[in-house]
Amino acid sequence: MPEVESFNLDHTKVRAPYVRLAGRKAVGGGVVEKYDLRLAQPNREAIPTAALHTLEHLLAGYLRAHLPGVIDLSPMGCRTGFYLVAEGPIGEEAVLEAFRKALEDVLRHQGEIPGASFRACGNYRDHDLKGAKAWAQRVLEAGLKVQPTL
Amino acid sequence: MPEVESFNLDHTKVRAPYVRLAGRKAVGGGVVEKYDLRLAQPNREAIPTAALHTLEHLLAGYLRAHLPGVIDLSPMGCRTGFYLVAEGPIGEEAVLEAFRKALEDVLRHQGEIPGASFRACGNYRDHDLKGAKAWAQRVLEAGLKVQPTL
Ligand SMILES: [Zn+2]
Ligand SMILES: [Zn+2]
Repeated sequence: MPEVESFNLDHTKVRAPYVRLAGRKAVGGGVVEKYDLRLAQPNREAIPTAALHTLEHLLAGYLRAHLPGVIDLSPMGCRTGFYLVAEGPIGEEAVLEAFRKALEDVLRHQGEIPGASFRACGNYRDHDLKGAKAWAQRVLEAGLKVQPTL
Repeated sequence: MPEVESFNLDHTKVRAPYVRLAGRKAVGGGVVEKYDLRLAQPNREAIPTAALHTLEHLLAGYLRAHLPGVIDLSPMGCRTGFYLVAEGPIGEEAVLEAFRKALEDVLRHQGEIPGASFRACGNYRDHDLKGAKAWAQRVLEAGLKVQPTL
């Protein structure tokens, strides 16, 4: 079976919250980068599905507002963070700054959750704005750092 | 806020299970494609976290074995499917074939779940191989088709 990058990361050594460069791939003459945006400490906590889903909806827009070239932002199956795929080169520090600003936007968000209707969403009942804001606040208070791959 | 492709999809009109081309982005002189691999019918069902997480681990390897150029495969926050990001052009039919083969591999999988240890995984307790196989079987029995964007 082909190798999967995340299976080689030692999840017992990383310290959330953090931003980590998970991989780089040459495409055409350019490059696509993948970042591990980790909010919760692996195997110690996990973001409940509703808060994670709302964070996905909010960060989809807010992260794109601070970072050009975003291709995808999706939650991890382990529910401790998100994978960001974007056209690079960007660098960990610039991603960290954009992620921090996007989390501040989540905290300030007022009104409806974007795209969370029966028509626009795949699971419109499973949302939690209060929970999403609580996770954003926790991460901002703890302070994001760049995590090398261990 | 920048536009997010999935918020423009009419989730009441699509019929799971399916493969849909969700987007294309020029990178360098090449192209990166994003596919919506939908296992469950939006707003009617959702894959439980443990089965979704195990599917993520298994498909990470098995899909790469059948499809070159995979950059990311991540579950959707709504828990009805996965987003695949890959170097293109591939095309819906070729993605469908690779996804079908990977689901057959999931059904045949014996032994441990790859990368599901305390060290290699972010939530090693939240796995369900039986549930993952049951979803793979359901999708294969229902039959995958190409879904246009509605
Ligand atoms: Zn949604
Ligand atoms: Zn995992």
